Amino acid sequence: MARALIFDLDGTLVDTVYAHVFAWQRALAEEGMPIDGWRIHRRIGMSGGLFARAVAREVGRQLSVEETEAIQQRHGAIFRELLPERRALPGARALLEDLRNRGIVHGIATSGRHPEIDLSLEVLGVGAETVVIDRGDVARAKPEPDLFLACQAALGVDPDDCYVVGDAVWDLLAARRARMLSVGLLSGGYGADELLNAGAFRVYDDAEELHKSLDELGFDV
Amino acid sequence: MARALIFDLDGTLVDTVYAHVFAWQRALAEEGMPIDGWRIHRRIGMSGGLFARAVAREVGRQLSVEETEAIQQRHGAIFRELLPERRALPGARALLEDLRNRGIVHGIATSGRHPEIDLSLEVLGVGAETVVIDRGDVARAKPEPDLFLACQAALGVDPDDCYVVGDAVWDLLAARRARMLSVGLLSGGYGADELLNAGAFRVYDDAEELHKSLDELGFDV
Repeated sequence: MARALIFDLDGTLVDTVYAHVFAWQRALAEEGMPIDGWRIHRRIGMSGGLFARAVAREVGRQLSVEETEAIQQRHGAIFRELLPERRALPGARALLEDLRNRGIVHGIATSGRHPEIDLSLEVLGVGAETVVIDRGDVARAKPEPDLFLACQAALGVDPDDCYVVGDAVWDLLAARRARMLSVGLLSGGYGADELLNAGAFRVYDDAEELHKSLDELGFDV
Repeated sequence: MARALIFDLDGTLVDTVYAHVFAWQRALAEEGMPIDGWRIHRRIGMSGGLFARAVAREVGRQLSVEETEAIQQRHGAIFRELLPERRALPGARALLEDLRNRGIVHGIATSGRHPEIDLSLEVLGVGAETVVIDRGDVARAKPEPDLFLACQAALGVDPDDCYVVGDAVWDLLAARRARMLSVGLLSGGYGADELLNAGAFRVYDDAEELHKSLDELGFDV
């Protein structure tokens, strides 16, 4: 059995969602585009293009390419200022270590980019041995299936044998479009029903609970 | 018919939840008590004493009164730094103005305190004409019913005739204990199922949608 796990990064393995929400909120407010925190939260993890279009809809006008780029830059600067240190979510580092030790096939597929994600990979103890697909590797981010399909191809397994693990509905929708089963984690701040409705067949609190529950996913533990 | 509305403040009328979450996260991390953002988020709006006990459980040891006080002070300082300006949630100001103009009985009952809440009341256009019950007015905060009961008493209506409007499960649990019906708003970042399971009989996006839906609550509009 060559079952594989494909992990999202932000909110799934590292505790960055609330800093991202607040950094977007402040970057947008500075540009005269105040948007409710909860509406930003529910869009974290979707592609930057979709996010910019959603923002435009909220503020009621188109954003220029230059405006979008400037807001993204400012978001990155505020995010680094808010969260100079990165923190792994409970159990994430131990889970990945265990998967490596036991030879369970797994990879990471994130809408983030190098070098922003490097610090996250470092606190997770993830090195060159692990397949990491980032935004720069594919044409389209979540909820398109490209990130997960690129990860599955790099892992050399069938989509049918992959379980996606994510905290956002965008992960779960992308998993369905990639014809993969998916597991939701509450560690990104969504409610369980939102994750189940988006297609997760199980929901756990966080990586720690997932680790204890690998047998429920059919892994031989 | 003397039906009345009792509003929570943070996350219900003003867009402060994500700044509160991040300020708590940073204040706790500075004290060597890193706690997941989502676990803080789900505890915003409960009483400070319960919050401190929840934190103690997460970090696995008791907090002294001095530690609790120091973390609360630091949270307040970071919060004011993150969010020097306060922002009303969409529709909140107009809703309150309309209720005043039409003589619909209403008040605000918050776990926050003066002077921290003063800026919020100001951006909402709420003055001395409106009943505002704050943490200093009662012995116990949410999910105890005291805040809502004090507000109802000040408004001179029966609990049976009060609808509580809140964004957190703590509001909805406190409403049930006060024998009041409640309405949930998504503007604090909870999922709809969490609010319905906690007892809300309706869930709306935000104050704006609630305003358009007052007839669904039996108000004569």
